[in-house]
Amino acid sequence: MTNFVFQNETKIIFGKGTEKDVGKELIAHSAKKVLFHYGGGSIKRTGLYDTVVKSLKDAGVEYVELGGVKPNPRLSLVHEGIKRCRDEGVDFILAVGGGSVIDSAKAIAAGVPYEGDVWDFYDNKGVIKDAMPLATILTLPAAGSETSPATVITNMHGGESGDEQIKRGTGSGLLRPRFSILNPELTFTLPKYQTAAGITDMMAHIMERYFTQERHVDLTDHLCEGAMKSIIKNAERVMEDPKDYDARAEIMWAGTIAHNDILGTGRSEDWGTHMIEHELSAIYDITHGAGLAIIFPAWIRYNFNEYPEKIMQFFHRIFDVEAEFDKPEYMLNEGIRRLKEFYKSIGMPTSLKDEGIEDDRFEEMAEKCVVFGPVGNFKKMHKEDVIEVYKLAKE
Amino acid sequence: MTNFVFQNETKIIFGKGTEKDVGKELIAHSAKKVLFHYGGGSIKRTGLYDTVVKSLKDAGVEYVELGGVKPNPRLSLVHEGIKRCRDEGVDFILAVGGGSVIDSAKAIAAGVPYEGDVWDFYDNKGVIKDAMPLATILTLPAAGSETSPATVITNMHGGESGDEQIKRGTGSGLLRPRFSILNPELTFTLPKYQTAAGITDMMAHIMERYFTQERHVDLTDHLCEGAMKSIIKNAERVMEDPKDYDARAEIMWAGTIAHNDILGTGRSEDWGTHMIEHELSAIYDITHGAGLAIIFPAWIRYNFNEYPEKIMQFFHRIFDVEAEFDKPEYMLNEGIRRLKEFYKSIGMPTSLKDEGIEDDRFEEMAEKCVVFGPVGNFKKMHKEDVIEVYKLAKE
Repeated sequence: MTNFVFQNETKIIFGKGTEKDVGKELIAHSAKKVLFHYGGGSIKRTGLYDTVVKSLKDAGVEYVELGGVKPNPRLSLVHEGIKRCRDEGVDFILAVGGGSVIDSAKAIAAGVPYEGDVWDFYDNKGVIKDAMPLATILTLPAAGSETSPATVITNMHGGESGDEQIKRGTGSGLLRPRFSILNPELTFTLPKYQTAAGITDMMAHIMERYFTQERHVDLTDHLCEGAMKSIIKNAERVMEDPKDYDARAEIMWAGTIAHNDILGTGRSEDWGTHMIEHELSAIYDITHGAGLAIIFPAWIRYNFNEYPEKIMQFFHRIFDVEAEFDKPEYMLNEGIRRLKEFYKSIGMPTSLKDEGIEDDRFEEMAEKCVVFGPVGNFKKMHKEDVIEVYKLAKE
Repeated sequence: MTNFVFQNETKIIFGKGTEKDVGKELIAHSAKKVLFHYGGGSIKRTGLYDTVVKSLKDAGVEYVELGGVKPNPRLSLVHEGIKRCRDEGVDFILAVGGGSVIDSAKAIAAGVPYEGDVWDFYDNKGVIKDAMPLATILTLPAAGSETSPATVITNMHGGESGDEQIKRGTGSGLLRPRFSILNPELTFTLPKYQTAAGITDMMAHIMERYFTQERHVDLTDHLCEGAMKSIIKNAERVMEDPKDYDARAEIMWAGTIAHNDILGTGRSEDWGTHMIEHELSAIYDITHGAGLAIIFPAWIRYNFNEYPEKIMQFFHRIFDVEAEFDKPEYMLNEGIRRLKEFYKSIGMPTSLKDEGIEDDRFEEMAEKCVVFGPVGNFKKMHKEDVIEVYKLAKE
């Protein structure tokens, strides 16, 4: 086990009806004027918008609104949010939505007290030293952004030419939400595809931690396995009945635990797959979860020989592949078959072909993927490695 | 899953050599004058005392010392600590030791800003509204006090007569340590018996959460199971080789996770067994862990019919008892046999007889146990129930 520091201060308020108290909770956190940040029309359709407005008004919290966050959230809206906060004297951000809205809120939180362009943080040109406080009401269990320090933003006018689409992440403990409200009922209306993409994302967050070269990580291995088994079991239930409260609750809480850092304590984490996927969703604008379902099986196949015992353990303990110690190839093939079967069972693609993506931009994506050096830790992946993973993901 | 609020702000600093930075960390937490609180001579023998003193001096942190904490920590020393802090203008407490030292430090922390007698908090006569900040260097993985809000103290002059031995607990989020330093190397010198009692205690913290009447708790069930399996596996390793760093690390981190509240989210917890055990260790001054190894098998047998499926699941998933759905009695008996076998394998007693305790004070202990009402949630245990558990624990 490696040395580590662990601290996650986000207060979780979980359960039925909890969103109604957001105003009081903001007051308890000394918020005076809030940026109410959200995405499209779904929170208006479901009535969540009205609930939040009422709670803010009842508690006497002033607010200004900024909707319009898109999946793969855009830098342009972040810039608008920063300006709005400065102009209006906002002192707290409330993100109501999924990972995209929360990531956008984090970018605004980091940008407001910063003199330069907030993109500097994503472009490895600056370090976050201050941030406005933020909180969330989560509507899509997936990204784990509700307690994580991370944020991923897409710049539609990146690169030297100024017309490249570039998706990058950054992070800071200062960006962890002060509190996050999680009501599983708010996820009843999620479309099946988004539910499934979210499930794939949270599974991937655990897998990025599970696949480590660190040898003595018994406890966190077991905790990861417990969380993954629970996600797979309850995934089936929520796909069957989107209003199954208990299954929705298991999935929602698992999405947070998958990414609150505790499952990664004492081990190096990988994150190569996420980096490889980011280039896909940046260029083709596919859902992050769908991209992960395409890339992960290919990544596992490409890296099997780096530490076959770990990958066999994964397939045995999570997907019940019989432990055949002298037939690693069987375990790999059968395991990948079952992993893809799981993805397909919830409606995810498992190949680039499924999304109609051709192989004409592998070189370009791999180039961008390693722009700051090789990605991942299970194996350090250079440009050639990344291209091979894209190739293995073709079909 | 029940609604819940979860927040645990304690910063964990885990790994080899981490205790050397305690002085710097105290400075980072704005400590100026520290009460250095510890137990007997063991931290002097191991050199930890010198390491701490050097680190405090190097960082320029003033300190006053208060050693002498005993197992089942005494109220009298707490009173002395409170006086010392007030007289010397201490603004931060550093507890170096196991759960007893940390619990004593928490009592002092709660007592310093309180006008009445700190025992009021333990005697259900007051609520903690303010506390001095504290931090810990843990030397005995067991109680989980290093991130918990709880403290248990023994009053040797309790009751109306003033000569009863009374052991009581209280708690407050204000008592969670600001940071806790966990170096598994500091546990290499722990005697086998203490190691085993600590393992029994952390297992019990998970079992108190595992045995719930709440039906839909899939994720936390799986997380509990992962932690318990890891504890059992690594218990064998540390008993065999006390200097096995990785096994010590697994046990130490499991002790914290067992009691940092995350395994209890969304479910009611029991804690009846702890209450029933407290009366044992209060009167007979046995180790808390040993008391738990005696009481838990009896508690499980007594409560089997309250929710047999849960208990069968426990024995099947943790102790590999074959799932015999139509033979619950077999599963119960075989499960209890294996649970006791585990306790015995690490040198714990499994009956009152093993500790030479007779049945002449069952009535008195049960009376004290339910003084504030029935204990536990899996089944509400009244005086008669508690007596039955003591009886079942006889041999």
